Amino acid sequence: MAPLADLYQLTAAYGQWRAGRAALPAAAELFFRRGPFGGAPALAAGLAQGLRCLRAFRFSAADVAYLRSVLPSTTEDAFFDYLATLDASEVTVSAVPEGSVVFARVPFLQVKGPLLVVQLLETTLLCLVNYASLVATNAARFRLLAGPDVKLMEIGLRRAQGPDGALSASKYSYIGGFDYTSNILAGKLYGIPVRGTVAHSFIMSFSSLEEVQPRELAPLAGGQPVDLPTLAESWLGRVCDLLQTPPQKANRGELAAFVSYAITFPRDFQGLLDTYCVRRSGLPNFCAVALALQQLGYRAIGVRLDSGDLAQQSKEIRQVLRACGAHFQVPWFETIPIAVSNDISEQSLEEFQRELVEVNGSPCLKLTEDEEKMTIPGTKTIYRLYDAAGHPFMDLMALEEEPSPSAGQELVVHVLGQFGETSKVVPTTVETLHRTYFRDGQVCEPLPSLPEVRSHAQVSLSLLSPAHRQLHQPQPYPVAVTEKLHHLLTKLRQARQ
Amino acid sequence: MAPLADLYQLTAAYGQWRAGRAALPAAAELFFRRGPFGGAPALAAGLAQGLRCLRAFRFSAADVAYLRSVLPSTTEDAFFDYLATLDASEVTVSAVPEGSVVFARVPFLQVKGPLLVVQLLETTLLCLVNYASLVATNAARFRLLAGPDVKLMEIGLRRAQGPDGALSASKYSYIGGFDYTSNILAGKLYGIPVRGTVAHSFIMSFSSLEEVQPRELAPLAGGQPVDLPTLAESWLGRVCDLLQTPPQKANRGELAAFVSYAITFPRDFQGLLDTYCVRRSGLPNFCAVALALQQLGYRAIGVRLDSGDLAQQSKEIRQVLRACGAHFQVPWFETIPIAVSNDISEQSLEEFQRELVEVNGSPCLKLTEDEEKMTIPGTKTIYRLYDAAGHPFMDLMALEEEPSPSAGQELVVHVLGQFGETSKVVPTTVETLHRTYFRDGQVCEPLPSLPEVRSHAQVSLSLLSPAHRQLHQPQPYPVAVTEKLHHLLTKLRQARQ
Repeated sequence: MAPLADLYQLTAAYGQWRAGRAALPAAAELFFRRGPFGGAPALAAGLAQGLRCLRAFRFSAADVAYLRSVLPSTTEDAFFDYLATLDASEVTVSAVPEGSVVFARVPFLQVKGPLLVVQLLETTLLCLVNYASLVATNAARFRLLAGPDVKLMEIGLRRAQGPDGALSASKYSYIGGFDYTSNILAGKLYGIPVRGTVAHSFIMSFSSLEEVQPRELAPLAGGQPVDLPTLAESWLGRVCDLLQTPPQKANRGELAAFVSYAITFPRDFQGLLDTYCVRRSGLPNFCAVALALQQLGYRAIGVRLDSGDLAQQSKEIRQVLRACGAHFQVPWFETIPIAVSNDISEQSLEEFQRELVEVNGSPCLKLTEDEEKMTIPGTKTIYRLYDAAGHPFMDLMALEEEPSPSAGQELVVHVLGQFGETSKVVPTTVETLHRTYFRDGQVCEPLPSLPEVRSHAQVSLSLLSPAHRQLHQPQPYPVAVTEKLHHLLTKLRQARQ
Repeated sequence: MAPLADLYQLTAAYGQWRAGRAALPAAAELFFRRGPFGGAPALAAGLAQGLRCLRAFRFSAADVAYLRSVLPSTTEDAFFDYLATLDASEVTVSAVPEGSVVFARVPFLQVKGPLLVVQLLETTLLCLVNYASLVATNAARFRLLAGPDVKLMEIGLRRAQGPDGALSASKYSYIGGFDYTSNILAGKLYGIPVRGTVAHSFIMSFSSLEEVQPRELAPLAGGQPVDLPTLAESWLGRVCDLLQTPPQKANRGELAAFVSYAITFPRDFQGLLDTYCVRRSGLPNFCAVALALQQLGYRAIGVRLDSGDLAQQSKEIRQVLRACGAHFQVPWFETIPIAVSNDISEQSLEEFQRELVEVNGSPCLKLTEDEEKMTIPGTKTIYRLYDAAGHPFMDLMALEEEPSPSAGQELVVHVLGQFGETSKVVPTTVETLHRTYFRDGQVCEPLPSLPEVRSHAQVSLSLLSPAHRQLHQPQPYPVAVTEKLHHLLTKLRQARQ
């Protein structure tokens, strides 16, 4: 894993090594410069993956041979011998627990160790943590918008940056609050619940009811099997009468696909409506098959739309389902879940919010330019201060050697961005944000399971005050430093002038 | 690799299997619905990766056991037994050679085989081909903008969708026409030239010239080693005089880092200018070290900017370099390459084009919604028709059984989007676009090396007429079907009404 780094880090490493600085104690911090996606909070994710990579950090003989071929020929042999000895045994990592809410400018991961190793780990950790945190944050925003009851499913596999990008998207969407993934491999590897129904290609592979095979379905309560294509076709006539659409416009291949699917999965029948015309074909065909199933004691589980004006069509579909439910006296028809997929954005989700019961959302996997900056020594301890209502109201950075602030006691702090001024705050509760996860080459803190990380994320988000939780133009979340740290920063700044 | 698929494809597969349709002959085609990034041509990429995955297509016992736990409990045992027997031995894949120019609506990859296998391969192939083609296309657009001489380097590792996404970005940027990557692992795995210089973190790790170690550098021509920090500091005074900036504003840590780097890599010294103030610190420090090196016979290779208004700063830097070159009588100083990185877009590249000699561009890894659609049998042969000047002027789809069109003979075709009308064309040359790459479970066509694919892409692009090559609002590229195929499509459309 070691050579997953940018070449400039190797050339810099050589410089450090020649200067005798390779083993100097160093520290790096990872934080967001701005809250991603226009909000204040982000979710920190990717920690477990980063720790795995630390444990495996090592240059193999082949890696070293390759580097020898790439670095200038004047590079000393002894440097390559040195590279071959490197590992992460002297590295210490502290971080917020995976899935925690973090804010811009507050380090959520700190790496301490020999300068050269810390620098080499920089890109690798960023690569693993950046994307993970962005996906988790994006998913959390969808969850906040959708509320706790709507089901969210990630179906980004075919648009991801290859298999790995897709798997990470499934994992970190789940951590951020999604319920399901369509990606079977993600389900198998990570235990994320997988869901899925029917594809356009399946529907298009049928052209007439004669192709349906087998044709019979037994009633749920038992009894004589029934020829479902015939039953569905008779229902199609009645449905088209009610909806006043010509039965010949209902595509028979689509009807055949629906019937075939219903016979295969009678308890899990969902209609994908937009292969042909939704109004004249998809919807009448769905209603016909669902009513035929209902006659045999089964309930369809929903419909899905994958194109067009999803909000507008959802409304029309709801009207038709209501009309069918009323006319044929099938009350549950009125509340059949309407799922939508394809280009679900926060904005469209906001529009639909009242309309929907299930949303299959593919998160927008935006990579923002928010990234880390490396800083040198003076590592900090980070506290989160809570008010009497239990909401965090400030993150406070202190020097490691300072005593921990106490609950109920007044603190004098400098809020970042308000230079020169001090503020006084009295926290009701004080939380130390970071734990030490890696030391002496080993992971030293038990890592939670994926569902545990996911719950932690929801708890972490739920503690936020509504003003900080807002998805757009949130109230800025204050980040402060202690007086001692403020003095140190001022001194450093002056020294660098 | 088999379970890298969406669950709905497995449920559909079960339906097909129960209906006795699993082994029906089927075909799927991959194409873009629209040209990506607002242009007409795209580069087809990802073929080699897709073929590798085909060869390995198989459900392991563990995969089958997992699927058993996920599919409804009513799913028949025999279906899982059937899954365990599946492989790609009956699949045939034809495609355009990797790196070829392709246009919207023209299939660039066709998969034929048993319906169930073809459907299961859909997502996997899309996942591998979509992203690859988009990255290659994006890179090709940067190359077209930058012209053949500017060096383009991909440095997207830390922002990619994990290690795999980053490696793919390196590979397909290279295919599209980039020169280098910063990603060492990509260099090692794929043989892509790697480049890199110095990082902000390296510069920030120094605070004074006392830290420089070792301090001496021998002249290129041999002779007594010189104390470079002292020499550089004396040059700094002269440079600051010339530029009329106060020497105390030139950060000494930055100077130390530059000197240290120059001693380590005297033939490869590049200054990263924006760690502190470019004008008062980065630039004077760079000039001082470069002039000290020049005195010892070495030439600095360039400067790099990584933040701020890159275009404006580039101009100012060029002025300063010219002034230094003239004043200190070092003519090559005027043409020192200025590299820029950070958020390089097509637009900013267009602005800089005259300014720059090297561009370290991280491609915008946009995923568009352009995607495939699955179609059923009636596979096509695709021809590219060339005019007398050697430019392709039309892609023509024909039924497989039709005779190939002949060069110099008039063809009657239907251009897509002009329904009902026929056009007559006389191609000077006719090229069959697809080759068969996979048959009987084996790759049956030699796969070119990465540099060969890269050259093919540049040749393929260079054949385009300027009107089709335009990056924005290109002249629409006509895609046509033969009369026979047109009749078939019309019949199918009527049958589906």
